[in-house]
Amino acid sequence: MTDQQTTPDTTPATSPPPGPALSRRRLLTTAGATGLVLGGAGAAAGYAAAPADATPLTSLGADRAMFHVKHQPGITTPLQARGHLAAFDLAAGTGRKEAAALLRRWSDTAQRLMAGEPSAHDDTDVARDAGPSFLTVTFGFGHSFFARTGLEKQRPAALDPLPDFSSDHLDKRRSDGDLWVQIGANDALVAFHALRALQKEAGSAARLRWQMNGFNRTPGATSSPRTARNLMGQIDGTRNPKPSDGDFDERIFVPASGEPAWMANGSYAVVRRIRMLLDDWERLSTHTQEQVIGRRKADGAPLTGGGETTAMDLERTGSDGTLVVPLNAHARITRPDQNGGAAMLRRPFSFHDGFDDDGVPDAGLLFIAWQADPLRAFVPVQRKLDRGDALSRYIRHEASGLFAVPGGASKGEYVGQRLLEA
Amino acid sequence: MTDQQTTPDTTPATSPPPGPALSRRRLLTTAGATGLVLGGAGAAAGYAAAPADATPLTSLGADRAMFHVKHQPGITTPLQARGHLAAFDLAAGTGRKEAAALLRRWSDTAQRLMAGEPSAHDDTDVARDAGPSFLTVTFGFGHSFFARTGLEKQRPAALDPLPDFSSDHLDKRRSDGDLWVQIGANDALVAFHALRALQKEAGSAARLRWQMNGFNRTPGATSSPRTARNLMGQIDGTRNPKPSDGDFDERIFVPASGEPAWMANGSYAVVRRIRMLLDDWERLSTHTQEQVIGRRKADGAPLTGGGETTAMDLERTGSDGTLVVPLNAHARITRPDQNGGAAMLRRPFSFHDGFDDDGVPDAGLLFIAWQADPLRAFVPVQRKLDRGDALSRYIRHEASGLFAVPGGASKGEYVGQRLLEA
Repeated sequence: MTDQQTTPDTTPATSPPPGPALSRRRLLTTAGATGLVLGGAGAAAGYAAAPADATPLTSLGADRAMFHVKHQPGITTPLQARGHLAAFDLAAGTGRKEAAALLRRWSDTAQRLMAGEPSAHDDTDVARDAGPSFLTVTFGFGHSFFARTGLEKQRPAALDPLPDFSSDHLDKRRSDGDLWVQIGANDALVAFHALRALQKEAGSAARLRWQMNGFNRTPGATSSPRTARNLMGQIDGTRNPKPSDGDFDERIFVPASGEPAWMANGSYAVVRRIRMLLDDWERLSTHTQEQVIGRRKADGAPLTGGGETTAMDLERTGSDGTLVVPLNAHARITRPDQNGGAAMLRRPFSFHDGFDDDGVPDAGLLFIAWQADPLRAFVPVQRKLDRGDALSRYIRHEASGLFAVPGGASKGEYVGQRLLEA
Repeated sequence: MTDQQTTPDTTPATSPPPGPALSRRRLLTTAGATGLVLGGAGAAAGYAAAPADATPLTSLGADRAMFHVKHQPGITTPLQARGHLAAFDLAAGTGRKEAAALLRRWSDTAQRLMAGEPSAHDDTDVARDAGPSFLTVTFGFGHSFFARTGLEKQRPAALDPLPDFSSDHLDKRRSDGDLWVQIGANDALVAFHALRALQKEAGSAARLRWQMNGFNRTPGATSSPRTARNLMGQIDGTRNPKPSDGDFDERIFVPASGEPAWMANGSYAVVRRIRMLLDDWERLSTHTQEQVIGRRKADGAPLTGGGETTAMDLERTGSDGTLVVPLNAHARITRPDQNGGAAMLRRPFSFHDGFDDDGVPDAGLLFIAWQADPLRAFVPVQRKLDRGDALSRYIRHEASGLFAVPGGASKGEYVGQRLLEA
């Protein structure tokens, strides 16, 4: 990795890169705790001054992610407590010129809101009084965007539709879309405010196609260093690639010299609404759940022993001669070394939208996977899961999207400018 | 107020009451900031010990509300970041005995989860690793509960159905219910875990009738001492009764000697899903919005001047001879001194469930109002609003519930025991 590649998105692009002793991984995981915080008391400076009896903002509110960075924010940013995913479709008659103007307005709005300032036009005041709250806004382009804007020749091959999987139960109305927006923040009103501001800036150029609301653990709610849990109660994300891995950038980001040129430093996001069939899952004993996953539920350690980060012994057999980690265990099948090295950065939110007719929660995972090439990451892993994952009977893929997320915008530039003004 | 009445619900019922210099109001508003926190590192002691490299829980995760208190938790508890409201209906054939067993199981579960411990049966592990996160669980009884359990004679007159209001657009499927549960926590997984645990404990005795998810600002996201904002961007709740008010307990809680006896120290909750018509609202200028509300949007001060808590000058006229605070301004109509002293404690969550066919957010307020007698609080105020509130054209009441919330359970007792075993 070069120094430039280690610049975390919590630091302005113009800051000197961190020294070798302070890795990007460490910055990413300790930003909140160590007070690596920008903005602080002046974060909401775009509004009137705070009252004299103001109490200090904690890092939860003061933490600020930067908009003008090499890779868009919201990819390696630590998980936020609240998230919105939304797809917009361009209105009929909206072409490249109007799309460029929309991305310019959206980039301006995202940059302002991430700094804790109001939007440029008719701010609703919903986020007033709040700090930036680690807001990130991430923009992507779907397959259908390119035909609508006459840019088919610029459409990356990597955006070709995902193959069908036998476990798919996809709702087309909640899938795909011309434009994709990912919003994350540690305050739900800040996240709501951002989505509404972007919708208003869309004006008549684009309409909401679908929207999903999600959540993660609130910073400070746990003292455990363990990876986050999902709504099955499982530790989820242990084997995620880490920015400190030597091949992290290569796996997750399109290189600066990559194709197409407008995707330099970008990434591809696979979005899946994965419903968890919680009644069925919770009926299993903890022992059976652990056989399905291949890891201990309490601490995420492999069934072959150690702690969460201990390597799994794939060959170990028990006293009865059977493999300790079953062949169809989820954690075995998803291992990069079982998938030709395929690796993606999973950065999900949980969702919980009510309950279905049987009273079972309509809940699960808003799965978001980041990779330089979906055909070498999500697709082969999902193909393998589709054939033999013990977990597959407890989940259902209900919606799907694949989006090209260009690199971060430089100062004065907007996201997607290199595509729209090429 | 007696000393007992000043015991905040963040202190165990057995603790000495706070001295006169530290009012309940102060305790309520500063509990998080001053570290008035129970549990701390040992809060999750019901699970296995935390790993050695654990980082400290912040007050957000460590804060703990007590279950065994005079009034149920979740009424005067500071607003939490995440909330669930749910109604359950008893299954056919479920009578008083089964309902009593259900409330006993629910009380046990609530007490354990609020202490940061797992539930007694088949805990899902979703809240594992997290602190109590200020979880509160509050239980209430709806009008229909009493006929189903043969307890009609114990049904309070205060539970008589609310009158119809001309602005009502109520969805019966999302209204009423035999039993009501209010869950609040500063971590969304902790809140989800609690709702799911209660649903599982209900077993075949009761089924979910409706569920609503809500949110408030996350503690630490703002440094402003101002009252919370709603999704209209308005400061909302300025004139809420305060526990330090001399008549607070009298207005909000049924007295210890009140009728029926099982409602001693209880309260009545009016629940309304109030949709905000945000497209219409946001089209107004800030000036017009301020005329509708009667307060300045930026800081909540009355249009007649001062700060948020300055008294409103109802008689002041401007240079053109018209009232500065219009006769139909929301803040004028809802003033207790304009409603025969009617006052209720509003403790809402915002909601945001997606968007409707026009792309307008399906968003608004999960209005929850607490009072000793709805006929002397919510009903007269809502009648007056129904006739002449300038705000009414920008909101729509879409669901409604009225629930009798008994006093808190003593140690060894469960919520509602005085009703179910009378």
